[in-house]
Amino acid sequence: MSTTGTRHEAPAVRCLPTDQPRGCNRAAFLQRNSDPGVLGQGMMLSAGNGVPSFTPRVVLELASDTKEEAITWLLSRIRDTQYNGGTELLVEQLGPGADAQEKENPNMFLVGATWQRLLSGAEDLGLFKEFNDGSMRAFTCANKYNFKDFKGDGDSFLSTAECQYIIKHELDTLRAKDETHVPGLSRVKLYPGKSVIRRLLSKGILIQVFPLHEKEELKRLSFAWYKKVKLSFQPLEDIRHYYGEGQALYFGFLEYFTFALVPMALIGVPYYLFDWEDYDKYVIFASFNLVWCTVILELWKRCSSSLAYRWGTLSRKKAFEEPRPGFHGVLGFNPVTGRQEPLYPNAKRQLRVYLVSLPFVLLCLYLSLYVMMIYFLMEGWALSVHDAEPTFWTGILCFIPSVLYAVVIEIMNLIYRYAAEFLTEWENHRLESSYQNHLVLKVLVFNFFNCFASLFYIAFVMQDMVLLRQSLATLLITSQILNQLMEAFLPYWLQRRRNKKMVRKIHKGKTLEDQELPLANQVRLEADMSTYLGTFDDYLELFLLFGYVSLFSCVYPLAAVLVVLNNITEVYSDAFKMCRVFKRPFSDPAANIGVWQLAFEAMSVIAVVTNCSLIGMSPQVKAYFPDSDMQLILWTVAIEHGLLAFKFILTFLIPDVPKHIQINLSRLEFESREALKKKKILEASEVTKAAQ
Amino acid sequence: MSTTGTRHEAPAVRCLPTDQPRGCNRAAFLQRNSDPGVLGQGMMLSAGNGVPSFTPRVVLELASDTKEEAITWLLSRIRDTQYNGGTELLVEQLGPGADAQEKENPNMFLVGATWQRLLSGAEDLGLFKEFNDGSMRAFTCANKYNFKDFKGDGDSFLSTAECQYIIKHELDTLRAKDETHVPGLSRVKLYPGKSVIRRLLSKGILIQVFPLHEKEELKRLSFAWYKKVKLSFQPLEDIRHYYGEGQALYFGFLEYFTFALVPMALIGVPYYLFDWEDYDKYVIFASFNLVWCTVILELWKRCSSSLAYRWGTLSRKKAFEEPRPGFHGVLGFNPVTGRQEPLYPNAKRQLRVYLVSLPFVLLCLYLSLYVMMIYFLMEGWALSVHDAEPTFWTGILCFIPSVLYAVVIEIMNLIYRYAAEFLTEWENHRLESSYQNHLVLKVLVFNFFNCFASLFYIAFVMQDMVLLRQSLATLLITSQILNQLMEAFLPYWLQRRRNKKMVRKIHKGKTLEDQELPLANQVRLEADMSTYLGTFDDYLELFLLFGYVSLFSCVYPLAAVLVVLNNITEVYSDAFKMCRVFKRPFSDPAANIGVWQLAFEAMSVIAVVTNCSLIGMSPQVKAYFPDSDMQLILWTVAIEHGLLAFKFILTFLIPDVPKHIQINLSRLEFESREALKKKKILEASEVTKAAQ
Repeated sequence: MSTTGTRHEAPAVRCLPTDQPRGCNRAAFLQRNSDPGVLGQGMMLSAGNGVPSFTPRVVLELASDTKEEAITWLLSRIRDTQYNGGTELLVEQLGPGADAQEKENPNMFLVGATWQRLLSGAEDLGLFKEFNDGSMRAFTCANKYNFKDFKGDGDSFLSTAECQYIIKHELDTLRAKDETHVPGLSRVKLYPGKSVIRRLLSKGILIQVFPLHEKEELKRLSFAWYKKVKLSFQPLEDIRHYYGEGQALYFGFLEYFTFALVPMALIGVPYYLFDWEDYDKYVIFASFNLVWCTVILELWKRCSSSLAYRWGTLSRKKAFEEPRPGFHGVLGFNPVTGRQEPLYPNAKRQLRVYLVSLPFVLLCLYLSLYVMMIYFLMEGWALSVHDAEPTFWTGILCFIPSVLYAVVIEIMNLIYRYAAEFLTEWENHRLESSYQNHLVLKVLVFNFFNCFASLFYIAFVMQDMVLLRQSLATLLITSQILNQLMEAFLPYWLQRRRNKKMVRKIHKGKTLEDQELPLANQVRLEADMSTYLGTFDDYLELFLLFGYVSLFSCVYPLAAVLVVLNNITEVYSDAFKMCRVFKRPFSDPAANIGVWQLAFEAMSVIAVVTNCSLIGMSPQVKAYFPDSDMQLILWTVAIEHGLLAFKFILTFLIPDVPKHIQINLSRLEFESREALKKKKILEASEVTKAAQ
Repeated sequence: MSTTGTRHEAPAVRCLPTDQPRGCNRAAFLQRNSDPGVLGQGMMLSAGNGVPSFTPRVVLELASDTKEEAITWLLSRIRDTQYNGGTELLVEQLGPGADAQEKENPNMFLVGATWQRLLSGAEDLGLFKEFNDGSMRAFTCANKYNFKDFKGDGDSFLSTAECQYIIKHELDTLRAKDETHVPGLSRVKLYPGKSVIRRLLSKGILIQVFPLHEKEELKRLSFAWYKKVKLSFQPLEDIRHYYGEGQALYFGFLEYFTFALVPMALIGVPYYLFDWEDYDKYVIFASFNLVWCTVILELWKRCSSSLAYRWGTLSRKKAFEEPRPGFHGVLGFNPVTGRQEPLYPNAKRQLRVYLVSLPFVLLCLYLSLYVMMIYFLMEGWALSVHDAEPTFWTGILCFIPSVLYAVVIEIMNLIYRYAAEFLTEWENHRLESSYQNHLVLKVLVFNFFNCFASLFYIAFVMQDMVLLRQSLATLLITSQILNQLMEAFLPYWLQRRRNKKMVRKIHKGKTLEDQELPLANQVRLEADMSTYLGTFDDYLELFLLFGYVSLFSCVYPLAAVLVVLNNITEVYSDAFKMCRVFKRPFSDPAANIGVWQLAFEAMSVIAVVTNCSLIGMSPQVKAYFPDSDMQLILWTVAIEHGLLAFKFILTFLIPDVPKHIQINLSRLEFESREALKKKKILEASEVTKAAQ
C-alpha cells in the first residue's frame, strides 16, 4: 500500500460527495439538529447513494431477519431526546454497496452525533482534556472555552476514538423504559432500566457494534508507525489518538520493555562470546538479573502513570460498570443503583470458582506435569537407543520426543484456553473486568506452567545447565517464529485475499489496491474483518518472554538479545495487525496495564528465587563451601530472604506516581476545595448582610 | 472516685452559675452573636468570677510574660469574622482561681463557638454524620435537618470531641494576613498565609492548646469502661464520642487482639499441662500459629473498616496537611496551595535519611547485637563458674548477667528513643504524618531487635529449646509487670498527689475527692496534667506482645494465656490512664491503625519464617529425614515459600472492606453522580425550551 498523492483534509469530506464547502454544510446541519423536535426526521435526509448526512462513527449490524417493527422501535429510541430517555444520537441505515449482492445484510446502521451531543457525552463520561494552563481537567460544557484546542464547534477537540467511545457509552446506557419486550420480538424480554443494546447483543439480534476506520488518519498513522524503518520512538500520541489509551499503553509498555532489555542484551553479548562455555561465571549475570527485573517494573509504574496523566485517564473516575451481556440470574434490585437487574449470589459464584474451576486448573497442571514427565522418559529412551547403536534413523528418533512434546503443548494450550473461557463464562461474573481477571489468571497460570515447568525440572531436578541452555534457546526461538507467523502474517494474508476480491468485484479490471471504495462497501468490508480481541494475547506473549529473560537468562545470556530482536519485529507486526488486519477496536480509557502489572511482579519475585538458587548451585559459589552443602543452602536461603525483603521495601519506597504529577493532582483538588469554601463564606456573609 | 448522686444533664450548665433557663439563654446568646459587627464586644461580657458566658471547649495557654499588645491582637484575630480572615470563635480570658497564687499564669484563654459556627466548621472539615436513612454522609448545613439526631440548635448533634476538633482546626487555619510579625513581638516573624497558632507554638509564646475534660461525661464513661469488673465489650461508641476515632480504634484493636488470642490460649493450656516436656510436639502448634496470625490481621482490616465506616472516617477526605510547627526552610511558594511557606528540598531530606539516619540505626543495631553477644559470653562464663564449684554465691552470680542485660537494654531503649526523636526532628519533615512514620519505623526496628535478637540467637544459633522457653517466659512476664507499673500507676500516683494538694488548698479541711472545683481551678489543674503523647507506646507494646506470641509461642504455649491476661489488665490501666492521669487529647479522626497495620503484617511474615524453621528443626520432623539434613532443609524452604505465597494470595483474596460497606459507599457515590446528571439534563432541556 503506497501513500496517495492527494490528502483530504478532513475525513468527513469523504461522506459528502457533493462539492459543498464543508464548514457551512456542518453549520447548517447543526442548526437543523439543534431543534430537538425535528431531530428524528432531520436525520432521514440522506445525501443519496447510502451516504448519510452526518459523519458516521459507529456501525450497528442487526441480524438480517430482524423484524421491521423492532428496527423502527430501536431507531426511534436511539433518536429520542435524553429527556425522554433516548440517546439523542443520529442513526441511519446503510445503503446497498456498489455491485450489491443479494446475500448482503441490509440491516447495517451508521451512528453519529452532533458536536453538542458529543461534548455533553464527554462531560457525562468525565473525560479529561488538557486545560489552558496545561493541566488535565474533567471536561465540562460550561467552561469549554478554557480547554486547550477548543475552537467553536470543537472539531479537532475530540479525537475520533473519543467520539466513538462516547457514542458507544451512550448506546450502552440506552435503557428500557416500561417495555416488557422488544416490539416485534417477544422472546427478547426487557425490564425497566435494562440496557437495550446489551440485551440485543446477548440475544444475537445485534450481531456487532464496531467503530469505523478513518482512512486518511489511518494512513498517516501507519506511515508514522511502521511504514518506514527507523530508529525512533513509536508515535504513542497518535496511537492513543486513534486507538485509545489501552492500546497506546500496550505499545508504550512494549517499547519500554524493549529499551529496558537493551543493557541486558549489551552485557549478554560479550558474555556469550567470550565466556559462554565457562558457565559457572553466571553469578554476576544472575545478580544483575535480580536487580534489573525489580527496578524496571517499579520504573514502569511511574512511566505508566506519567503517560496516563498526560492522557487524562489517571484520575478519571470510572463509571459504574453494567453487568456483562452474558450475565444471568434472578431479577432483583441492584443494591447500588437501585435498578432492576439480574442478581446472582456471590456465594454460589465462589463455590463454582473454588470447587470446580480451581480443582480443574490444578488437574490440568497435574496433567501438564505428567505429559512433561512422559516427554523426559521418551527423550531418555531415545537417547539410550541412539547411544547404543547410533545410526541416521536413531539420530532422527532423538528429535521426535521434542517435536511431539511441542505439538502436545500447543494442543493442550488450545484446549485449555477453550475450557478456561467456558469455565469463566459459567462462573457467571457480573462485571466484564471480573470476568477478564479470572480468565487472565487461569490462562496465565497454565501457560506459565507449560512453558517453564520443563525448564524448572531441568534446572533444579536434573541440574543439567547445558541442557537448560539448549532447551531455553530452542523454546525461545521457535516460539518467536511461530508467534509472528500466526499472529500477523496469516490473518493478513486472509484479509488481503478478501480485500482484493472486494476491490475486483467493484472496479472490474482495475487492480489498484488503494482505490477508494464507496462508503457502503468500505463499511461492509470492515464488518467482515476479524475482531480484535483485546491486548490479552499480546501481553501474554510479553509475559512469557519476560519469564525467559528474568528466570533463566543467566545461563543463556543471548536470551535478552533475542527478545530485543523479537520485540522490534513485534512492534511492526502488531502495528500492522492493528492497522490492516483487524476491525478498529473501541478505545478503552485505561490508566495502567491492570492485572498484568501484578503478573509481571509475581514473575519478578519468582525470578529472585530461581536466580538465587542458580547462584547457589553454581560451582563458583560451591567452592566457598567445600565441606558442607548444608551451610551453602542455609546461606543461599538467608540471602534470598534478604533480597525478597529488600525487594518489597523497594516497592514500598519508590512512589508509584512521580512527584510532579502528584503535585499537579493535589493542586487541582486543593483548588476545587478552596473555591467551594470561598463560595460558602461569601454566601454566608451575603445572607448576613441581607438580614441586616 | 465514686459516682455522685446528682447528675447534671448537660455539661454546659456548669458554666452558667446563674439559674437562668438554659435554652432561652443560648437563644438570646446566639441572636446577639449572629450580628458579626458586635461579636467582638459581645463576648467580653462575662458572667463574673472568671466564668465565661459560653461553653468553653479549648484552652490556650500563653507564656505568662507575653506582651499585652500581642494578646489583644491574637484575640481580635480569633474573634474576627471569617470574611475578614478571622475564625469567628468565642474567646475569653480565664479569671483567677479561688485562692489564687501569685505564680499562677494569668494568660489562660478559653475558646468556644456558637452552634452555627461549629456546624459550618463541621461542613468545612467534611465531617461525616449519620443520615436519616442510616448511611454516613458528609455534613452540610444546607440539609442539616436530614441528619439523624439533629434537633434545632444541634445540641446533642456534635459530640464534645467533635466540637473541640473543629475548634482546633479553625484555630490552626487562622492565617496571617499582611503582618510581618506578631504585634509587640518582633521576633515572631509572620508572612501572608502562615498559620498564626503554629508559629506561636513553635516560638514558645503559645505554651499549649488543649481541650477541656467534661466532668459529667467523663464520670459516665469511666463508670461504663473500667469502674465495674465485668465480662462485656468496651463501650467503644462512648470512647469514640469522648476521645475521638483514633483512641477508639486503639481500644477496639486491643479488644480484638485479646479475643483473637483466646483460641490460642485455649489450645495452649492443655498443651502446657500435658505435653510441655515433650517439646518436639510443637509442630501442630506452630502450624496453627501460622494460619492464625495471617487470618486475624486480615479480619482486623475488615473489622477496622467497619468501625471506621460506622464512625464516618472511612470515606472522609483528608484536608491538606499544614507543615509541622517545627518545620523550617527557605520561604517559597507551596506548589499545591500556592501559599507562601518554608520549603526544604526533598533531596536534602533524603540525603539526611539515607546517609545519616540509616547508618545510625544500623550502627545501633550492631551495638545492640554486640551487647547481646557480651551477655551470652557473660552468662556462659557465670554458668561455667557455677558448674565448677556450685555455691550460693555462684548461684546468685548466674542471675547477674540477665539482670545486667535487662537494665542495659532498658537504658539503650531510652537513649535510642531520644536519639531517634532528635534525628527525625533533624530530618526536617514537612508533615506531622511523615515525621510520625519515620519515628515509628526507627523505634520499631530497634525495639524489635532488642526484644527478639536474643530469642532468635537462642532458637536458631544455639538451637536450645529449653533455654528459649525460659527466656521467653522471663521476658514476657517481667516486661508486662514493668509496663503496667510504669505506664499507669506511677503517673497516677503523681497526679493524685497534685490533685489532692489542689483540693486541700481550696477546701481547707475538706478532703472529699469528688468535690467540684471552680472552673478556673479545674482548668489550671488540667493544664498541669501530663500530656498524652498519642497511641504510639500503646501500639508498640501490643506489637511486641504480638511478636512474642506469633514468633515463638509454639515452644511456650502459655504465652498466649499470659498475653490475654496482660491485655485484660491493659484495658483497665489504659482506660484509667486516659480518664484520670492525662490531659484530654484532641480527637484524631483516624480511619485505620495506620502504619501499625503494616508493622503487624511484617511481623506475621517473619512469624511464617520462624515457625517454619522451628518446625524444620523439631525432632519429630527430623525423624522423617534420617539420612539427609539437606533434604530436610530443602523441603522446609520449599514449604515456607509455598506458605508465604499462600499468605500473599490470601491477603489479596480477602477484601479489606466488607461487602455491605462497599455497597453502601458505591451507592452514595452513584446517587450523587446520578443527581448531577439529572440536573444537567433538566437544565439543558430548559435552555432548549427557553430558546424556542
